[in-house]
Amino acid sequence: MTEMSDLGLMYKRRQGKVLRRVGGAAEGMLVTHLPDVRYLCGFMGSNGTLVLFRSRALLFTDGRYTAQAETEAVGTRVVTASKPAVVEACEWIEAAGIMCCGFDGTRTTVSELGKMQAALSKKLGARARSGMFVDVGAAVARLREIKDAGEVEVLRRAARVGCELFEHMLGFIEAGMTEMAVAGELEYRARLAGAESMSFETIVASGDRSAMPHGRATDRKIQRRGFLTMDFGVVIDGYASDMTRTVHMGGAPRSKGKGVPGQREVYDSVLEAQEAAISAVLPGVTAGEVDEAARSVLRRDGLDGYFTHSTGHGVGLEIHEGPRLAAKQTQKLEAGMVITIEPGVYLPGEFGVRIEDMVLVTATGAEILTPSTKAWIEL
Amino acid sequence: MTEMSDLGLMYKRRQGKVLRRVGGAAEGMLVTHLPDVRYLCGFMGSNGTLVLFRSRALLFTDGRYTAQAETEAVGTRVVTASKPAVVEACEWIEAAGIMCCGFDGTRTTVSELGKMQAALSKKLGARARSGMFVDVGAAVARLREIKDAGEVEVLRRAARVGCELFEHMLGFIEAGMTEMAVAGELEYRARLAGAESMSFETIVASGDRSAMPHGRATDRKIQRRGFLTMDFGVVIDGYASDMTRTVHMGGAPRSKGKGVPGQREVYDSVLEAQEAAISAVLPGVTAGEVDEAARSVLRRDGLDGYFTHSTGHGVGLEIHEGPRLAAKQTQKLEAGMVITIEPGVYLPGEFGVRIEDMVLVTATGAEILTPSTKAWIEL
Repeated sequence: MTEMSDLGLMYKRRQGKVLRRVGGAAEGMLVTHLPDVRYLCGFMGSNGTLVLFRSRALLFTDGRYTAQAETEAVGTRVVTASKPAVVEACEWIEAAGIMCCGFDGTRTTVSELGKMQAALSKKLGARARSGMFVDVGAAVARLREIKDAGEVEVLRRAARVGCELFEHMLGFIEAGMTEMAVAGELEYRARLAGAESMSFETIVASGDRSAMPHGRATDRKIQRRGFLTMDFGVVIDGYASDMTRTVHMGGAPRSKGKGVPGQREVYDSVLEAQEAAISAVLPGVTAGEVDEAARSVLRRDGLDGYFTHSTGHGVGLEIHEGPRLAAKQTQKLEAGMVITIEPGVYLPGEFGVRIEDMVLVTATGAEILTPSTKAWIEL
Repeated sequence: MTEMSDLGLMYKRRQGKVLRRVGGAAEGMLVTHLPDVRYLCGFMGSNGTLVLFRSRALLFTDGRYTAQAETEAVGTRVVTASKPAVVEACEWIEAAGIMCCGFDGTRTTVSELGKMQAALSKKLGARARSGMFVDVGAAVARLREIKDAGEVEVLRRAARVGCELFEHMLGFIEAGMTEMAVAGELEYRARLAGAESMSFETIVASGDRSAMPHGRATDRKIQRRGFLTMDFGVVIDGYASDMTRTVHMGGAPRSKGKGVPGQREVYDSVLEAQEAAISAVLPGVTAGEVDEAARSVLRRDGLDGYFTHSTGHGVGLEIHEGPRLAAKQTQKLEAGMVITIEPGVYLPGEFGVRIEDMVLVTATGAEILTPSTKAWIEL
């Protein structure tokens, strides 16, 4: 009898859940999306195909990763493939006598599916071959939406590093610096704090560029009197954090002009919308209801037309996971989900404000994982 | 008559080439892979579907990107979609009377293809619907393998920034620093030098970790007497650079032990293999022949069993593009390709060496875009 570590048991549990989820449609599952592979067996390399079948798990990879896979994929048998990993996986599936294997059509390209089918031998017959692979959809992604205690702990740490970086930046930023210098400092400090990488390209958008929801840092110098929006995250132990704060560069905020709302008014409205959405978070509430909680505050203030994106998204091994918090989404929140709440208002050519927290859905509401201040700040 | 800028003409030319390439199989093409969209029309946002049909180009995006798309996508009509962009694109295709539209099966998931087909109206009839979308493969990716003069210029600049960073790091690195501190400094300097982002997660692997081809920076302290491998790249104006150098941390290299080759011998062999591969580069030569040029040097020295990956890959708007320089690849090199040449030797648990340049395939051979020294360096 081999003893299996806690890690191995955790992976077995996750694998079992996937198989139960696809059980009605298929006997096993072929997993190729790398974050799913990592989630289900621990392997972190860039080439791996996982096959789940009854109580067995096999990871197909190549020679570069054999040693790494044997260390990381606790409890999973590692096969070093000489052909493409997915091809050998399909050959194994056929040899094991599987007649119907699930795959994730949201992650498998048309061309990959063609290769999977071509890997089956002619002996099977055209009918058996065309029936072998069944699209079971994003079965693993749905499972990953609910974080277990260990995952929450890592996400909590990643979020905390984000908050510490924001605190540091408040003491660093001065008018006259370029957006890139600000992004560079933030990313350098992230490294020193132990980040493996940033979660996505850091957004530092100043002045009228704050009106661009996805304004990457440029060599623009940060001016007085405008907003500065920073949207960033760090990856710790594979898990991503995500937060946004918008600060004012001082010199008195611009008040209401003809047709343009005042800077302070917009900030207060976005903050109220963001807090209303957080207050709406509760298991059983739909993602659309949380989105509407933010949107209705902005609507009251005549600003909803300038809120041009959704309210948030799940976050974990990937920066964008389910659930999607957007208008009319009927998916219900569940305890253990970790989501962002990030309404924004963007007045084209003028300015923009976005405020974003990462929150954990708990049995009784929301726990904010990024508790940095959201009060109006003038630098 | 509207005048069209040079940029607009360039995009028109590229679009025309794609249509000629797929012409035998389809009347038009639906493009969803974002680097392809950027290449064909200039749009850099994160949601865009491009439709090419006869001399027309339409970009479907959402409200967040309307203004940006109208600025960036010179010569292309921008449509702000209220449904998912790809759905409105398919509706337009049907309304325009197209009967057969190409798509890239290497970039379209099974589930996306399902959505494309579902977007067509029942009026069309089952036969017309199932015949509408034809997999024309990586037509745009194949086109992108050959860089035009403007692209070469940007890649040259990105590669030059990489070389300057390497020079800087030679003066910065000292034994006792962590790998992460080295990666952090490199990335910070990259920002200051104008990089939009890194091309991929920076690899800094010291001591026995240099035996891992993809060893991301860790909090390990860099020791004397071992190797330090740095593999990194920067993105400038959307184009990625890629280079690797391996330096020795001094204190005399370890000489040959029982069963283990000496550090200096391995370095010299990898360098000779890398230069042999560069010398083999010429239009008309196959990718497999270039790979073999490197591999045969290592074979002569009994090290080919430790060269566990391919010799290189194309690089451009994405860090990994065609052609793939691996054993038996029959694709012929062509002038205008920009590729990496990066053989390595990895002795598990001991040490590893990789040396990588980016080179431009010219009419007469190879031009090295990353001319930093490859001589043995002890820090």
